[in-house]
Amino acid sequence: MIERIAILGTGLLGTSVGLALRAAGFTGSISGWNRSAHGAQQALEMGAIDVIASDAVEASRAAQVIVIAVPIFATLDLMEQLAPVLGPEHLVTDVGSTKGAINEAAGRLFNTPERAAFLPGHPMAGKERGGAELGDADLFRGAVWLFTDNPAWKRSPQSAALAEQWRKWVIAMGSRSIDILPERHDEMVAWVSHLPQFTATALSALLEEEVGDAPELKDVGGRALREMTRLGASPYSMWRDIAHTNTAAIERALLALEQRLAHLRENLRTPELREEFEKANRFRKE
Amino acid sequence: MIERIAILGTGLLGTSVGLALRAAGFTGSISGWNRSAHGAQQALEMGAIDVIASDAVEASRAAQVIVIAVPIFATLDLMEQLAPVLGPEHLVTDVGSTKGAINEAAGRLFNTPERAAFLPGHPMAGKERGGAELGDADLFRGAVWLFTDNPAWKRSPQSAALAEQWRKWVIAMGSRSIDILPERHDEMVAWVSHLPQFTATALSALLEEEVGDAPELKDVGGRALREMTRLGASPYSMWRDIAHTNTAAIERALLALEQRLAHLRENLRTPELREEFEKANRFRKE
Repeated sequence: MIERIAILGTGLLGTSVGLALRAAGFTGSISGWNRSAHGAQQALEMGAIDVIASDAVEASRAAQVIVIAVPIFATLDLMEQLAPVLGPEHLVTDVGSTKGAINEAAGRLFNTPERAAFLPGHPMAGKERGGAELGDADLFRGAVWLFTDNPAWKRSPQSAALAEQWRKWVIAMGSRSIDILPERHDEMVAWVSHLPQFTATALSALLEEEVGDAPELKDVGGRALREMTRLGASPYSMWRDIAHTNTAAIERALLALEQRLAHLRENLRTPELREEFEKANRFRKE
Repeated sequence: MIERIAILGTGLLGTSVGLALRAAGFTGSISGWNRSAHGAQQALEMGAIDVIASDAVEASRAAQVIVIAVPIFATLDLMEQLAPVLGPEHLVTDVGSTKGAINEAAGRLFNTPERAAFLPGHPMAGKERGGAELGDADLFRGAVWLFTDNPAWKRSPQSAALAEQWRKWVIAMGSRSIDILPERHDEMVAWVSHLPQFTATALSALLEEEVGDAPELKDVGGRALREMTRLGASPYSMWRDIAHTNTAAIERALLALEQRLAHLRENLRTPELREEFEKANRFRKE
């Protein structure tokens, strides 16, 4: 039974995990570590964690389940730090947006009978801005929580049982879980998550140059413009790591969109425009 | 005083105008003509119009103010039909999304002391799907209603007074009005309205080909994906006319976005990516 959880990183996702666990009935202890004291204090005041941990490694040793909720390169750093000091009585899991590099590290550093288990996870939920203050007990409700677990990994019975229990808590938080290969995960999220983000970033940056000095034009654009640029507010700090760890797949998706836009531009007055609208309409059909 | 209004086209916008006029306290008569009987019947049942007109020209002759709310080419057709049969006691206005062609026709066919006035208008409001059943008394609340009026036009005092009154009803419906040159209008909406639409269409059409046969992937994308493709549901019938009447400006905007996406793709691992995110962040700052 999971009774002691440590959350490393009490930003939007980490704080939401704490709140969602409480809302789902978790009554054990939740300690929280955060790079900045402000975020940890906020998560404490919101009830997402019971106690602020000053040291990530110490907090992890004292917990059974360690949830890493920081950007990808920081996740990889923590994995290096934690692997030598944890044992088969621990489960580490994460919420990182790309899984290739994390799965590689999980296979290399964890998941032997003598070491902690590492269950790579990725809840498809977020907001365009981060921070503990936006933490939300319902963030994962109705979302898909992806796992890129590897059945070939040999775990201790104890850590394997913790992994099974963690999967149940994910369901209890309102998510649906899907298991998928890490390569397929990274290819897939390049299309349905990273491409929409980088499109919004490019569109917002372009419009900042074209109409940024005329704020009334943003009003003119109305809801459609607001919606298509909302993700433009997403932070570089998070997306840099994604761009670095899923470069080839994102490049493919961006190039495909560039070609699609060129095709549309060359066909603004031909019947081909109808084809494009009808194909787009089909994507939106329930 | 405006007491008799005819709405030509009881789709989303025409029906919403009728409902918004009623909500704002208009107590005169509103007749409605629509190409399909179903849409007119729907508008009648919703209270957007009092009576269904079987003939657009007859309904216009009997009204003081005629609101044309059909796609742009159909608007131009109606303008040709109405100009010879209306007189200086009438005001015609429209809601078309591009204004170059409509302003040209308005100057050529209307706006002399002997003819009806034509006040070209464009409320920046809509939904991704059309139809009377989506009509909404609050559609124009908080929206910008653009006018591309020409101060050089010589109107009869009677029709000029109707134009001033129509502007007041637009405010009463909850909109803010802005006057702008038609050329500037078409250039501006290419950036803040047409570019977001065509981007959503291209992204949706691309994703339909890439992941359309795997509906669970749409769930994986979550809110960000839904939002970035919502406008993919927009109908070709309306956007064809916009693409045809604002081609050059839309081509410029699309080409600029293609170049921006290529720049981003070539810089996924360079510090330039930070610049793009920061520029996008600035666009979203309140």
